[in-house]
Amino acid sequence: MILLKKTVILGSTGSIGRQSLDVINNLSQEWEVVALTANTSIDLLEEQAIEYKPEYVVIMDDKLALDLQKRLQGKCEVLKGLKGLEDVVSLQGIDLVINGLVGAAGLKPSIAAIKAGNRLGLANKESMVIGGEIINKLLASTGQEIYPVDSEHNAIFQILSSHRDQEIKKILLTASGGPFLNYSRDELQDVSVKEALAHPKWNMGKKISIDSATMMNKGLEVIEAHWLFNTPYDKIDVVVHPESIIHSLIEFIDNSMVAEMGVSDMRLPIQSAFTYPEKKNAQVEELDLFSLEKLTFYKPDVEKFIALKLAYQAGKMGGSYPVVLNAANEVAVDSFLKEKIKFNEITRVIELLLEDHKGESKLSVDDILAIDQQTRKKTREVLDKCC
Amino acid sequence: MILLKKTVILGSTGSIGRQSLDVINNLSQEWEVVALTANTSIDLLEEQAIEYKPEYVVIMDDKLALDLQKRLQGKCEVLKGLKGLEDVVSLQGIDLVINGLVGAAGLKPSIAAIKAGNRLGLANKESMVIGGEIINKLLASTGQEIYPVDSEHNAIFQILSSHRDQEIKKILLTASGGPFLNYSRDELQDVSVKEALAHPKWNMGKKISIDSATMMNKGLEVIEAHWLFNTPYDKIDVVVHPESIIHSLIEFIDNSMVAEMGVSDMRLPIQSAFTYPEKKNAQVEELDLFSLEKLTFYKPDVEKFIALKLAYQAGKMGGSYPVVLNAANEVAVDSFLKEKIKFNEITRVIELLLEDHKGESKLSVDDILAIDQQTRKKTREVLDKCC
Repeated sequence: MILLKKTVILGSTGSIGRQSLDVINNLSQEWEVVALTANTSIDLLEEQAIEYKPEYVVIMDDKLALDLQKRLQGKCEVLKGLKGLEDVVSLQGIDLVINGLVGAAGLKPSIAAIKAGNRLGLANKESMVIGGEIINKLLASTGQEIYPVDSEHNAIFQILSSHRDQEIKKILLTASGGPFLNYSRDELQDVSVKEALAHPKWNMGKKISIDSATMMNKGLEVIEAHWLFNTPYDKIDVVVHPESIIHSLIEFIDNSMVAEMGVSDMRLPIQSAFTYPEKKNAQVEELDLFSLEKLTFYKPDVEKFIALKLAYQAGKMGGSYPVVLNAANEVAVDSFLKEKIKFNEITRVIELLLEDHKGESKLSVDDILAIDQQTRKKTREVLDKCC
Repeated sequence: MILLKKTVILGSTGSIGRQSLDVINNLSQEWEVVALTANTSIDLLEEQAIEYKPEYVVIMDDKLALDLQKRLQGKCEVLKGLKGLEDVVSLQGIDLVINGLVGAAGLKPSIAAIKAGNRLGLANKESMVIGGEIINKLLASTGQEIYPVDSEHNAIFQILSSHRDQEIKKILLTASGGPFLNYSRDELQDVSVKEALAHPKWNMGKKISIDSATMMNKGLEVIEAHWLFNTPYDKIDVVVHPESIIHSLIEFIDNSMVAEMGVSDMRLPIQSAFTYPEKKNAQVEELDLFSLEKLTFYKPDVEKFIALKLAYQAGKMGGSYPVVLNAANEVAVDSFLKEKIKFNEITRVIELLLEDHKGESKLSVDDILAIDQQTRKKTREVLDKCC
């Protein structure tokens, strides 16, 4: 009898979740799906439950839980809400929890998985952005390690894990620059939701697509990298690399660099979370170097993409600032997606909220989530007044 | 008392040798130079002997040995010829032997160093091209490992040594393409020695500069990679990368790639031979990604640069074919440097010699060196007749 490895996939109906299931299909007969979770996408969750036969499904929306229960007729146990998420990530003997949740909502499940001793494959960068300090203490006290699923951090993790004894000089996070790389700040003012969602290189969810367009995504990734790799901010650089072929680079003290490269397909880092430290045949395409016209690199324009500047500032100030940055961003992006505010207003309101904030430090998880909630409320108020 | 590490540098007056001494200066107080060797450059060898105070110097030219002895007045022991080289690489307790010799002459000293249990930093690719099979058997029986100093192989060695458990799909050796990348075969006919020596990216010796211009250098490196990394020829690709920023790449079975990058400065791979597995502060410049216009990649044109095709063929046929390839090349390049033959005749004569050759296998070192000598003689005869 072959013992299957067990996985729990948080946010299985989202972009990361669906691609994780695709990866599992490719790693045939090796992984068993123990739990799947969704926010409100009940139809797709039902389909996935029938196909992957998990023991548990979790739906965040209370009202949908009963409906889902009826639909699945006891085929699997239906749990609901944050409590449901925390229960499934805390199950014993899970080999990999993929956290593909969007936003600050990912923090508590990340912490619960680590506390239960289950390895975390982290696509939810907000866990580290707002809770990095707490998570790192927890990891240190339990001797665990997070496996980053973000393409850039995955690249860096892989390079670092194979150069453990070598002194690094700099982490270089690559950024595609998003759909508006060559727009002026003025031209950015009137871009539509549709234009902002049309990312040139990566197939992603809506929230992260807008974050890529403002470059806040890269800003959040800088903070994530700071905590994941225990690296000071002045050793983390952002490199605009529109071709998105190099997923990130490390510079060592001897001035040599190592780059991790490949096609722009999230299934590459996702699969590596399932197979680490080994590599297995992937279903992603081979990178054909000869078909590339060129690879280019630019300094990011932080006056145009002020999100990046705000993120560095918030990260360096630490404590509650990244929480405010992230919460204001979540609310503002949501407003933009609903066409209530203009594109440049996303970052303008974040800047306002940060300026207005009096920093706090030594935060508990509850403190963080309280500041998150307060900031969301304040951001909505600011947006209601001005826009 | 700090115990210094001991190094022997073969070919200390050549390009690799001089840069090795430069690296030692940078690794202040860590390395002691035990022996230096030169072919005929007696003045520079004398200077180096006075500066680095080795116990031994070796001069290949018999007639110069007595002169050198007088000049150095007992400051160090003067040895001569191949016997002298073999003696110094076989000294006990040498931490690194840099083999920076040019051509087939490097084989016996490489073997002697391995037999003595001294770690070999190999810049003499011909050792592997003509003696790879023998050297690999020797390494396997003694459990030793060669540290490649060639920039490309150094990059691959570093990537592989940090991905030992991961299955590789392909080795991609980058090639600058040399000074004649965009010339037609016809235009190549009349290029001058001066033009051929003007390599756009790397500061190198004369022989290797011409080999770069014909791309035979890359051909020899393919054969070297075959033996160094025990990789079949169909898993070794050559990628023309004129910017010479990526020093080589590995493709893994999951279709991810890792690239090693840096400025084009041989002191980078040379220093890593001295510090491996650690990295230390280098005197080579930092690679400024933002100042790069672009990185490009092309398939090599093997109809124009037939050296590459010949090398793959000779490598695949194995046995004595690479010996013939290399010997004919050494003689032809020497003739070109003396302006006795035209540029395209270098590869034409190699092709002739290979066609004419009846392969032998299971060769001893003496067999190899005999075939090397026969081929040199035959090549000279062919050149005398035709050119």
